Amino acid sequence: MLRDLPRLVLEDLSPALNGGQFPVKRVVGDEVAVEATLFGDGHEQLAAELQWRAAGERNWQRAPMEELANDRWRGAFSLDTMGRYEYVVEGWLDRFGGFRRDFRKKLDADVAQDVDHAEGRQLVEEAAARSKGKTATALKKQLAALEKAEGEKSAKLLLADDLAELMHEADDRPHTIRSEPQPVDAERVAARFSSWYELFPRSMTGDKGRHGTFADVIDHLPRVCGMGFDTLYFPPIHPIGKTNRKGPNNTLTPEEGDPGSPYAIGSAEGGHDAIHPELGTFEDFDRLVQAAAEHGLEIALDFAIQAAPDHPWLKEHPGWFAWRPDGSMKYAENPPKKYQDIVNVDFYGPDAVPGLWEALRDVVLLWVDHGVKTFRVDNPHTKPLPFWEWMIGEVRAKHPEVIFLSEAFTRPTMMYRLAKVGFSQSYTYFTWRNEKHELIDYITELTTEAPKDFYRPHFFVNTPDINPVFLQKGGRPAHRIRAALAATLSGLWGVYSGFELCDATPLGPDKEEYLDSEKYEIRPREWRSANDIVDDITRFNELRREHPALQTHLNTQFYLAHNDSIIWYGKPSPDGSEMIMVMVSLDPHYPQECDFEVPLWEFGLGDDATIPVEDMFGGYRFEWHGKYQHIALDPDEPFRVWRLAKPGENA
Amino acid sequence: MLRDLPRLVLEDLSPALNGGQFPVKRVVGDEVAVEATLFGDGHEQLAAELQWRAAGERNWQRAPMEELANDRWRGAFSLDTMGRYEYVVEGWLDRFGGFRRDFRKKLDADVAQDVDHAEGRQLVEEAAARSKGKTATALKKQLAALEKAEGEKSAKLLLADDLAELMHEADDRPHTIRSEPQPVDAERVAARFSSWYELFPRSMTGDKGRHGTFADVIDHLPRVCGMGFDTLYFPPIHPIGKTNRKGPNNTLTPEEGDPGSPYAIGSAEGGHDAIHPELGTFEDFDRLVQAAAEHGLEIALDFAIQAAPDHPWLKEHPGWFAWRPDGSMKYAENPPKKYQDIVNVDFYGPDAVPGLWEALRDVVLLWVDHGVKTFRVDNPHTKPLPFWEWMIGEVRAKHPEVIFLSEAFTRPTMMYRLAKVGFSQSYTYFTWRNEKHELIDYITELTTEAPKDFYRPHFFVNTPDINPVFLQKGGRPAHRIRAALAATLSGLWGVYSGFELCDATPLGPDKEEYLDSEKYEIRPREWRSANDIVDDITRFNELRREHPALQTHLNTQFYLAHNDSIIWYGKPSPDGSEMIMVMVSLDPHYPQECDFEVPLWEFGLGDDATIPVEDMFGGYRFEWHGKYQHIALDPDEPFRVWRLAKPGENA
Repeated sequence: MLRDLPRLVLEDLSPALNGGQFPVKRVVGDEVAVEATLFGDGHEQLAAELQWRAAGERNWQRAPMEELANDRWRGAFSLDTMGRYEYVVEGWLDRFGGFRRDFRKKLDADVAQDVDHAEGRQLVEEAAARSKGKTATALKKQLAALEKAEGEKSAKLLLADDLAELMHEADDRPHTIRSEPQPVDAERVAARFSSWYELFPRSMTGDKGRHGTFADVIDHLPRVCGMGFDTLYFPPIHPIGKTNRKGPNNTLTPEEGDPGSPYAIGSAEGGHDAIHPELGTFEDFDRLVQAAAEHGLEIALDFAIQAAPDHPWLKEHPGWFAWRPDGSMKYAENPPKKYQDIVNVDFYGPDAVPGLWEALRDVVLLWVDHGVKTFRVDNPHTKPLPFWEWMIGEVRAKHPEVIFLSEAFTRPTMMYRLAKVGFSQSYTYFTWRNEKHELIDYITELTTEAPKDFYRPHFFVNTPDINPVFLQKGGRPAHRIRAALAATLSGLWGVYSGFELCDATPLGPDKEEYLDSEKYEIRPREWRSANDIVDDITRFNELRREHPALQTHLNTQFYLAHNDSIIWYGKPSPDGSEMIMVMVSLDPHYPQECDFEVPLWEFGLGDDATIPVEDMFGGYRFEWHGKYQHIALDPDEPFRVWRLAKPGENA
Repeated sequence: MLRDLPRLVLEDLSPALNGGQFPVKRVVGDEVAVEATLFGDGHEQLAAELQWRAAGERNWQRAPMEELANDRWRGAFSLDTMGRYEYVVEGWLDRFGGFRRDFRKKLDADVAQDVDHAEGRQLVEEAAARSKGKTATALKKQLAALEKAEGEKSAKLLLADDLAELMHEADDRPHTIRSEPQPVDAERVAARFSSWYELFPRSMTGDKGRHGTFADVIDHLPRVCGMGFDTLYFPPIHPIGKTNRKGPNNTLTPEEGDPGSPYAIGSAEGGHDAIHPELGTFEDFDRLVQAAAEHGLEIALDFAIQAAPDHPWLKEHPGWFAWRPDGSMKYAENPPKKYQDIVNVDFYGPDAVPGLWEALRDVVLLWVDHGVKTFRVDNPHTKPLPFWEWMIGEVRAKHPEVIFLSEAFTRPTMMYRLAKVGFSQSYTYFTWRNEKHELIDYITELTTEAPKDFYRPHFFVNTPDINPVFLQKGGRPAHRIRAALAATLSGLWGVYSGFELCDATPLGPDKEEYLDSEKYEIRPREWRSANDIVDDITRFNELRREHPALQTHLNTQFYLAHNDSIIWYGKPSPDGSEMIMVMVSLDPHYPQECDFEVPLWEFGLGDDATIPVEDMFGGYRFEWHGKYQHIALDPDEPFRVWRLAKPGENA
């Protein structure tokens, strides 16, 4: 029993989440670099092996790990297919490796004795005795040769690589220690890199009096695709409740004909598995999905688990909802506020488990069958975590290509946990990070701390609920600044329509909502104007597609710019051949200038070196001589995007 | 089954080591501040409780935890007795607490309706139905009152504290989540605070030709106690091997009469359970332990698991050792180096488990029975970790007062792991940290990172094996500098005899060993000289005893001193009433001066305030006016120790 206590220590596996409870997130094609700390007593030689397999595979693939400094070991494996993988680290006492190491030292110091040779032979003998087949035969042959050899000849045989190879095969791995399996999720690339455009289909009309349709949306696909987006996201498209319907600007006094909020889901015409009749039919929707695909766009739908008071489920499944002692329904509330057009389901209601949970999963599967592979989930933090873990697990086991985006704005604990339990992408605090130090702190947290392995930040510049004060007050320069930041800092960015027109009129002076919000009315727009920033957005999306450096947040490095209103960062391409460098003035009102450092050292260049620069918006080239440079930025041209490459390499 | 998935998340317990695998280290009398992250979906009110018990207790003590920011909760419990404790955190959905919170908000906003009152009554009714005895009776009484009440009267009853108290008692704690138990070790205070003096008993003689004895050591107790030490530590006191005995200065050619190294343990006269005959008998040893106790000193012994070639175990238990293919014994080696006076046991030898393990444990227990409660363990990192975990566990289960000090100088992974598996105290890298930034980095790692909960650094200024170059080259000022640092930075410090005499002659120009090392010969000394620093050491130990601020490393704070050769730190007393401030020049050769900041803010004082200062070595008092001060330090007076207290408070 004492003999069975583990002699070696194996700990601090990386990447790993909660000791293997949750999968580490990667995408297909990634190489997973695994590290672990492995050590034992004394000066013994250890060995470590990385083992991995894809879900459903029985056998492990194996590769030796390499020893780094301070008992750290490293190995790597590739994610060749989409879906779940797992890996394990195994360590053991490498007797023959230790013999080789010490024997070589003794030979070098000329102190090796006969008994040292004999020790090596003894290890070979033991290995031959315990192995079988070819290995045993080969080891016995080596042993015969060793028994005849002496001195230098014996030493050469003992240290030969082919003997080492055989001994590795025959190794009984004494004192083996093996980690728990660590899951890794290989998602499709769009989980890490995509560019979203959000619109309300009903607003795709030239006339406020005529409800836009899926057919109208098809007419807008060239525009959306032309700006370079790849994901087109709609707020809920289901029948809208009539009871307690909200009027324009969230008023409680709607007029006949007001369309209501699409987030008040469900009416006599159906619930989450139905389409709002004024948008079209399932056939129309299928046609739209098909047309979008032809434009290189995929459709993302909203998944908002809440019901209008006339949602069919309230009658069909009263046990899925909470009722008050007087028999009235429990509206959504955050006391003293009350949302009377919305009723929340009760996930632990008398009939809710598993009925409601399965019904919700089936709603998602229904839309998956209609070609929707991406869901933006409304307020997931107000629904139980085990529901998400179970539901996303069920859907992705069948359809590993499905992506869920978490729209949670709450405390970091919950936002991070939702990502761990299964959401591929997450809304963030980016919308409220305008200061240089705030942006640097936040990005650094996301790229260097635990979240880097599970939390993919989706940087929306605005949403139907968030009309940031910075945009309201900063006009067109502010919109260009935020577009530059979102499009270059993260692999995931999103624009809610109207942003490209610099439309940021708030509901009131201290309000973060839009005036005449599309949530409560149909809003036709003119899609180009002298004030728009469509060309900027188009160019950013083009750069993002062309430069892998811009397809992740994880490679962002901040550099020194001596002005608190100018942020300066760079992103190396995966192969290190180029860097996309971005400089943004955070001041939409006044010119700003600064001295800054060109990170010549990233290319192995000295401080006085010359490096060629390509201006990615201006389209011209120039050179920087030396590490210290100066720049002036103007609200009219608040950012620069440059491409750096080592002189002579694709410059 | 879906219903059973945990709804709430409980994570990041603190203090906790490896998820509860190892105990957190504290001492008797400490309060353990426990924090945990607890959260769930939505806006529900949660509650958390801290539960704890001492080893052998069946029932948990309980205290509510308080909610901090960002889902963090906090509670505390006291360690009243020595030994093992465990604690648990439990969280649940606090339905009635949530009702009270929301109901109060609605009352304040004047939107409370009858149905809100009814909801409260329903919760009380449910609680009354599920509870028993007194609680049920009291709740039914409350319910009767509520059913008669209306409006303000009903509200008052629903929000009354006595109802809340009853509802807490009757709470069925829905969605309970409970942490794993986390062990905490309450050791005696000496585990955290003690001052060690090391001597070779055989050198306690005036004549190199006469072997010192335990009786001679008794004569030295007043001197050691006079310097203020509380622990007197001896290298091994067992019979010394004769085979391959080392001569003076580690030579291989001893002469007749050379005493050999006490680390070559065992001869025909006995092994680890015997006493070297020239030192005395067990009766002499017992007398010494008794006499030491009368001087306020405890005896610490070396536990060095290694054998001289003539250790009795080699014949009695050949299966406890490793033998080479030619039948010769395997000497300790670190190729190409070889230690021919020492044989290591083989912990996994054919008869070693459990025979050797138990024999080693019994050796420790034998010495415990002779009054030894502290063991300095030689090179524990070359023996298996599971042995230490098992052996220390066995000894401390019977004798929780026993302290083990780990003498491991190796990679941080191993040094920290040894502390986790059971060592109460640890040797450190302090001996080689001489630069300001090195000291600050190292202390900061020990006080703010994971080690703070399990690794107690023992700062030895020198050891028989380590004669630091800084002392060799820096003379008396260097000795004073290192004494000041060790005695004030850590609750544990140690001096190997000779240090107080500034004896630092090395074996050779680039050697870190002492010339004429006591490890290989008897060395009588003159115990006072004009050059000694006995008075400094005495004063430091006096200050350490009088000021709890100096009894731990954990409270060390570094402050700004504008000179890379001057280190400046402060240590608040546990009650915050005073700070012991220490300023040390790290330069034993040249005068150094600097501007520095007095941390007036630690006393809530403004930058221009006046604070009284007591010089703890000079014995005089003065005042600092304002935060910015200047000082000059000289190699002759390389440090200052000041006491600061808020004006009017014990100043």
